[in-house]
Amino acid sequence: MSETGKQVAVGIDLGGTAVKIGIVNASYEILAQTSIPTNAERPYDAVIADIGKTAAALLAENGFTVADCAGAGVGSPGTIDSQNGVVLYSNNIRWDNVPLAAELQKYLPVPVRVQNDANCAALGEVLCGAAKGCQNAVFLTLGTGVGGGIVINGKIFEGGHPGGAELGHVKCGSEKRRCTCGRFDCLETYASATALIHDAKQMAAAHPDSLLWELCGGDLERMNAKIPFDAADAGDSCGKVLVDNYIQYLADGITDLANIFRPDKIVLGGGVCAQGEKLTDPLNRYLRENCFGSTVAYVPKAVIAENGNQAGMIGAAGLVLQ
Amino acid sequence: MSETGKQVAVGIDLGGTAVKIGIVNASYEILAQTSIPTNAERPYDAVIADIGKTAAALLAENGFTVADCAGAGVGSPGTIDSQNGVVLYSNNIRWDNVPLAAELQKYLPVPVRVQNDANCAALGEVLCGAAKGCQNAVFLTLGTGVGGGIVINGKIFEGGHPGGAELGHVKCGSEKRRCTCGRFDCLETYASATALIHDAKQMAAAHPDSLLWELCGGDLERMNAKIPFDAADAGDSCGKVLVDNYIQYLADGITDLANIFRPDKIVLGGGVCAQGEKLTDPLNRYLRENCFGSTVAYVPKAVIAENGNQAGMIGAAGLVLQ
Repeated sequence: MSETGKQVAVGIDLGGTAVKIGIVNASYEILAQTSIPTNAERPYDAVIADIGKTAAALLAENGFTVADCAGAGVGSPGTIDSQNGVVLYSNNIRWDNVPLAAELQKYLPVPVRVQNDANCAALGEVLCGAAKGCQNAVFLTLGTGVGGGIVINGKIFEGGHPGGAELGHVKCGSEKRRCTCGRFDCLETYASATALIHDAKQMAAAHPDSLLWELCGGDLERMNAKIPFDAADAGDSCGKVLVDNYIQYLADGITDLANIFRPDKIVLGGGVCAQGEKLTDPLNRYLRENCFGSTVAYVPKAVIAENGNQAGMIGAAGLVLQ
Repeated sequence: MSETGKQVAVGIDLGGTAVKIGIVNASYEILAQTSIPTNAERPYDAVIADIGKTAAALLAENGFTVADCAGAGVGSPGTIDSQNGVVLYSNNIRWDNVPLAAELQKYLPVPVRVQNDANCAALGEVLCGAAKGCQNAVFLTLGTGVGGGIVINGKIFEGGHPGGAELGHVKCGSEKRRCTCGRFDCLETYASATALIHDAKQMAAAHPDSLLWELCGGDLERMNAKIPFDAADAGDSCGKVLVDNYIQYLADGITDLANIFRPDKIVLGGGVCAQGEKLTDPLNRYLRENCFGSTVAYVPKAVIAENGNQAGMIGAAGLVLQ
């Protein structure tokens, strides 16, 4: 800890459209934050220069020196070489072998750690969220894709080599849905918000009388992941089928994770999680009925993430504060 | 280490029909071994008394005292509470909440550790087998069922709670095959030797002209897991379909494990592994083509286990020697 007695970290959530930058203290509270556009089409050094300068300015504006700062953590989409702080590949920001940590340190001369963004979110939920105090947790984001994060003995488990913990890329259904990763039938192609929206559009197109149409104002391009749940609530049979199918795939996916990791909790984040207990109640019923050895062994609960869109920043800061 | 300078452990492989007991040295060599029938229908204390007395006698016969013995490890089928050395539930030997470690120590007064048998086999392959020197490995046995073992940073990872690392109980196909665990479509119902034999019988029954009949001497009860591979080798179309389907399910299962754990190696044990490269060549092709990020990330290889039916003893001894 520095002479000033303040110990903070910079948490950076690098996204496809925006970069969120926060100053996080040792209690995982966000003391200050800002956001800048990513403009990922620029050369990577320009993007990283912006991030570094903005983070350094944010520290200074809030009265922190580099000596107060334990380091900076970055949550990045894609496949990360966390040992060397390199983004090996990210489809999202179109980076290829980018030395993010080394580049960022030019502007922010503190220890820098880089991790996959879903891994960061998982850590954030364990440090100060829905899995606070848990030694073992599994995290799934249900958003554009399905991201995964694993915490074992309180630490991120990213796999033995880069490309592990890709929990959205385990086989799920058998409809021959092509995944962005190239494989067929990944969990992501069934349990992402994108998949639910895709399925809802198809369902609506095939059922002109469905409430789905009214709920998206007659324009399928306005379909979102909430509408199928709202339609189901209102008794619409198409909505019910969509929600039941969606939950069935997700339930199978998290039951697999329970049988593999038998964690304390399974935390669900991302847009679809706004559905709260409409999602977790049936999932937990399925877990109780289908987990291996559920009569003698601990059955983990599925819970909704608590850190919302600050999960990335908090978890990234956790990489250096932990 | 004792005054005699010898440091050994007892490795015990508790099976449904026989118990294998070995004396294993610090180089994981089996110095002596014996086998006794399990007779699992007896009360558990009688079974454990036999094991303990036999192990103690084996040590004495080979010139080892209790002081030479670092401890005893037991690999048991079922769901294990490894912290307390209790077999919570085993369908195989019909045990329910059996305090195996405490009971065994009555006859063998050394530290006793108990683990799931597939976890032991996984550890054995890392200590002195196909994954020797690997820090991270995943192990699958393809036998009566599909057992799983995970090694992370050189140690068994059994999950956060009992009932983890059940890699045979992740969802695989969609044919609504009921698994012994109660769930539908577990990997075990497609990729076990039992499943392959079941499928081969069905295939033969539907195809009276298939070579499968000749290879099992006209008696489907003599079907085994080798026959479909032999039939495929001889050009039989039924054999080819069986082998292709079997490998496809297994390939999907191990690709999932690669995407989750990204281990150094994926080790395959159990009866089906006698097929060697007929199994691993297509599996490795599939892994290279389907692993997430395979163009930038490490793709683990599937390899055949090397410890054969001594894997359990060696791995169990490893629980105390490691």
